[in-house]
Amino acid sequence: MIPIVSITGRSGSGKTTLLESLIPLFRARGYRVGTIKHGSHRFNLDQEGKDSWRHAQAGAEVAMISTPQGLGVFRLLDREKSIEELAEYYLSDMDLILVEGYKAERIPKIEVRRSPPDGGLLTGEGEGLLAVVSDGSLSVNVPVFPPDDPKSLADFLEERFLRKRQREEVQLLIDGHRVPLNPFVQDLFRSLLLAMIAPLKGIGHFSRLSLRLETSEETKVNTP
Amino acid sequence: MIPIVSITGRSGSGKTTLLESLIPLFRARGYRVGTIKHGSHRFNLDQEGKDSWRHAQAGAEVAMISTPQGLGVFRLLDREKSIEELAEYYLSDMDLILVEGYKAERIPKIEVRRSPPDGGLLTGEGEGLLAVVSDGSLSVNVPVFPPDDPKSLADFLEERFLRKRQREEVQLLIDGHRVPLNPFVQDLFRSLLLAMIAPLKGIGHFSRLSLRLETSEETKVNTP
Repeated sequence: MIPIVSITGRSGSGKTTLLESLIPLFRARGYRVGTIKHGSHRFNLDQEGKDSWRHAQAGAEVAMISTPQGLGVFRLLDREKSIEELAEYYLSDMDLILVEGYKAERIPKIEVRRSPPDGGLLTGEGEGLLAVVSDGSLSVNVPVFPPDDPKSLADFLEERFLRKRQREEVQLLIDGHRVPLNPFVQDLFRSLLLAMIAPLKGIGHFSRLSLRLETSEETKVNTP
Repeated sequence: MIPIVSITGRSGSGKTTLLESLIPLFRARGYRVGTIKHGSHRFNLDQEGKDSWRHAQAGAEVAMISTPQGLGVFRLLDREKSIEELAEYYLSDMDLILVEGYKAERIPKIEVRRSPPDGGLLTGEGEGLLAVVSDGSLSVNVPVFPPDDPKSLADFLEERFLRKRQREEVQLLIDGHRVPLNPFVQDLFRSLLLAMIAPLKGIGHFSRLSLRLETSEETKVNTP
């Protein structure tokens, strides 16, 4: 499972600035970082009036721009996706996911505290507070990092989430939600998948396999 | 397999305008349409200076914005993805994919011809020309639709690609490329997948299943 850490804090506390300083540090250490921003403002893929913007305006559910350097995807939604769904679908090959603006989600949090302090911490007890970034003194049970020392915070996060991480090899998603698999079942599924594809022609070395089943009507699994 | 149709034509011939008129027609008929634009210009997810833009500038490989109405994804790439990869990863739940600006790809094409004609057709023989949109007279072996009648072109595309379409239930992707499976193997994989998940707790009705295997080193399949 890819570690997900939220940067929380009041408006103007410096969340984006902290993210901007953390991202290149992780990149320099060889990690792939993805970010998710919870937004309420309307945003546009592409500039207004440009082609992909026009596709989306005309009602395309997904409008994409593909260039040799990058890829942009705009997708209409009926409901907001959970962080878990976003991570599974769009960030599954990242090493670390940093999110901004999801203070209500039950994920580990770094709270950035504006100076001078504008009240107590946003993150209550038991809400996953990992550390605080603040230049004031603070009596909390978690480490406090000064805003001008993102390296120490990166060390802390690397030690906590990245060093010991073992890549989960087999993932099962049902309607976009991951079903937890214990190591025995993962091994079993791995062997079965390899056995299933062994008779197929033209598959040699690979690093990613995905087997998908889509049913037009809902399928019911008969659990014993 | 999701049908993919390219709208080609010289610069200024009206490709985006045609797409803008086709998309709502397909939507009104209940189809989900995704678009891909081949771009060379730099584009920004989010406005310059806004949070997700800053995440991407700082080096995030993927920067996302998620709102209740939609989702934006910006992704750095080392190399341009093929249309097939884009379709598999980002558009797998669409009914129709309309692309703009991929005239070299071997996919079915609708060529939009500017009036007055500025030379011969761009699409040569054997390059998948399905139809031409032009208000001039033209001697070609494919149907010619006037630009002010997108409904007839939508009828033509619907008849050709959407009515007879049967949803491919089982898909196997190896490193992002689809491995063709004949109906027998699809049935077999479907049964095996359902048997594999039957003993797991907590899975009832579902419409999408995805089983993924990721290996840190390349795995070699021993084909017999």
